[in-house]
Amino acid sequence: MTTFHDPPIEVDTRPAVLDQFVADETGRPGHRPRGVAYAAGLDDVLAVVAWARDTRTPLIPRGAGTSLEGHLLARGDELVLDLSRADAIVDISPGDFTATVQPGVTRTRLNAAAAAHGLQFTVDPGADASLGGMAATNASGTTSVRYGGMRANVLALQAVFADGSQARLGRGVRKSSSGYDLRDLLIGSAGTLGIITELTVRLHPIPEWLRSLRISFATVEDAVDAAVAMLGLALPVSRLELVDARSMAAINAFRDTRYPESPALFIDLESASEAGAAADEAEIQRVCRERGAEEAARAVTHTERHALWEDRHLLFFALKASSPGSRFLVTDTAVPYSRIAGAVATATRLGAELGLDVSVAGHIGDGNVHAVVPYTEANHEAARDFSDQVVRHALSVGGTASGEHGIGLAKKRYLREEHGGAVEVMAAIKRALDPLGLLNPGKILDA
Amino acid sequence: MTTFHDPPIEVDTRPAVLDQFVADETGRPGHRPRGVAYAAGLDDVLAVVAWARDTRTPLIPRGAGTSLEGHLLARGDELVLDLSRADAIVDISPGDFTATVQPGVTRTRLNAAAAAHGLQFTVDPGADASLGGMAATNASGTTSVRYGGMRANVLALQAVFADGSQARLGRGVRKSSSGYDLRDLLIGSAGTLGIITELTVRLHPIPEWLRSLRISFATVEDAVDAAVAMLGLALPVSRLELVDARSMAAINAFRDTRYPESPALFIDLESASEAGAAADEAEIQRVCRERGAEEAARAVTHTERHALWEDRHLLFFALKASSPGSRFLVTDTAVPYSRIAGAVATATRLGAELGLDVSVAGHIGDGNVHAVVPYTEANHEAARDFSDQVVRHALSVGGTASGEHGIGLAKKRYLREEHGGAVEVMAAIKRALDPLGLLNPGKILDA
Repeated sequence: MTTFHDPPIEVDTRPAVLDQFVADETGRPGHRPRGVAYAAGLDDVLAVVAWARDTRTPLIPRGAGTSLEGHLLARGDELVLDLSRADAIVDISPGDFTATVQPGVTRTRLNAAAAAHGLQFTVDPGADASLGGMAATNASGTTSVRYGGMRANVLALQAVFADGSQARLGRGVRKSSSGYDLRDLLIGSAGTLGIITELTVRLHPIPEWLRSLRISFATVEDAVDAAVAMLGLALPVSRLELVDARSMAAINAFRDTRYPESPALFIDLESASEAGAAADEAEIQRVCRERGAEEAARAVTHTERHALWEDRHLLFFALKASSPGSRFLVTDTAVPYSRIAGAVATATRLGAELGLDVSVAGHIGDGNVHAVVPYTEANHEAARDFSDQVVRHALSVGGTASGEHGIGLAKKRYLREEHGGAVEVMAAIKRALDPLGLLNPGKILDA
Repeated sequence: MTTFHDPPIEVDTRPAVLDQFVADETGRPGHRPRGVAYAAGLDDVLAVVAWARDTRTPLIPRGAGTSLEGHLLARGDELVLDLSRADAIVDISPGDFTATVQPGVTRTRLNAAAAAHGLQFTVDPGADASLGGMAATNASGTTSVRYGGMRANVLALQAVFADGSQARLGRGVRKSSSGYDLRDLLIGSAGTLGIITELTVRLHPIPEWLRSLRISFATVEDAVDAAVAMLGLALPVSRLELVDARSMAAINAFRDTRYPESPALFIDLESASEAGAAADEAEIQRVCRERGAEEAARAVTHTERHALWEDRHLLFFALKASSPGSRFLVTDTAVPYSRIAGAVATATRLGAELGLDVSVAGHIGDGNVHAVVPYTEANHEAARDFSDQVVRHALSVGGTASGEHGIGLAKKRYLREEHGGAVEVMAAIKRALDPLGLLNPGKILDA
């Protein structure tokens, strides 16, 4: 460990350590940052920000490092402010259905602590991300069809701003109409407006009656139509996942299973009673049969449910195994419900045109469609072209470039096409709160 | 109708008309605004804002005029920009569960149009407010325990900013992690950051299986404990209202009923199936019996349910009838669940100490407690003292001064106590977006 420029906390500048911060899932070449400082909490962050102002050193706040969109890549002059060691669970208040945590706490650790009270933190982006990072990217995932993403589950934040001040944004209550909604402004701002140093989040009761289903359809259109029909009947689905035919084939190959290699829905159903669960499941089966569902697997016990979902959870590994030596690009558009089937069809068609092995999985309840594309050096350009056309299609039908991964560096080029003149409003806010450009500069906005 | 200063649209300056804009529910003396301009849509708003910049004329955007916190009161130099005639339902997309409306559309009009598709707009603040006004104050109400308030139900806004630009904030999709969350920043900003000219909102299926219950308890503590237990069991309650003993007495007097004059819960239960509804109701009854519930009324048919809820909906009129000649003050604090019973007890105790006839009703699922206080000229000071102490108590236990009515003018004095240094961040954003102070100046912030 070495020091430079009188840093207020210990900074690691060893090249071998800094090299770990250069690459990320985007496959973009990053630069070695100036160093990595490990903050244990608010006081450290305050000290580092004060020092960063004095020395005009830009900062990249970092949690578990699971960003998919280049939020954490350095230009080279930044200090990485690693908050993974700020990992205290400050408080769990079962009677208030809340927990207060430092930003480095990961969702699985919070869930382990909450489970002792019969409660859960529901936002599940797949990766074992940190709560601070999940707030910074407005993460969501498989459960948001019922529980919402981070905005629906963060009640209050503590944050440090570029002027060296700190403030609490929001209160630990279920609703408030007091003052401007700075909490939601910070959520999804990727550390460009402030550094999150504490979060108060909602916890939800662990459901008593859970059933899981995997149902196969002849076409993506039928599967999407059945999913939207379930939402229209207000059936209590808590996960509603589309897996396309190519993905099912990859699962069969990886898991040595014999599932129909046709589009499927993976469904979790949370009912308040056993009688309700039976009725709700019967209704789902009816809706699916009416849309020509071909086969259904059901799971009721914890072990059965775990086995059913394991196929879905391992999908990315199955796809990796089916394209050894490839890197992977994952799109993240979200579209209105009526455009989901079209978005999937567009991705499949573009894949064929560009000679790419495109698989599609989607969080249907959010209209969030992930196309997964293996690529090598040889067809990297085609993969980029694919991603570009998928985003432009989503924007053309009223969708968004990012449903849950964020803009980071990778999706910046679509910001104006998606938001038009609102980009100037965003830039005005960035200038007002960070005039020196100290906080994760160049992410989301060019400024 | 007269004109002045070359206004871009017709402006009404007749004193008799302007006098209607002087008073509101706060009982504060307002001033006659300069005039009232009626905007029919985006083009009118753009023209008025451009003119307001040229002439340095401050604007007060206005919808249905149902604010309870002085959002619409004039200092005297403002032009009221009345958007109630911008009332087109632009689009209903049943397959997307969305509607797009101009800001002057009221919630009952939207609901009438949505019902034709089996859908509803769920935010219900009681008054027949305009959607634009509801967004500007981040309104919620009885159904937010299940469906959330405006932030959970507005997908996208179109707004005009003080620099004369217009932009779309958010997209008509269920989730997005693209760019800063300007939509939620505008929601609750009371027209101080931008003027809402269009909204895309979520619609929800009208539930198939509804049951309503009115259950009496010996104490407020028992009622709150039962309510929180229902939430802990994830029972599908869509309304969960506390009505205290004094309120029940007022209902009996007003409606000539013989209900127990003790604290009661009014509950709506939305199940996905008939079997589920029966099981869910049985569970609620069990939870309440275990907390010593004394009497329960249940309603299943539409007519029965309407009659049961009519008592609750007429509560304010019942209280008015019990204090003829009085004006009324309504507090709006929200607190963590574990503090609800204490907040009600505090309001009741303060009422006794100050010689006021305090009644309490609360949206338990939100921790939102309304104390209703009749007052006359003789005890106006005591009523104000009551409100002040109720707010300070809520803030001292981690609550908020406003759960759903907003800050306006009436709650400005608590902003710093609630938000600390975040007030400077809010002020920096206001200065960045409205440096001339043209948009509803003096509301929420002093600037």
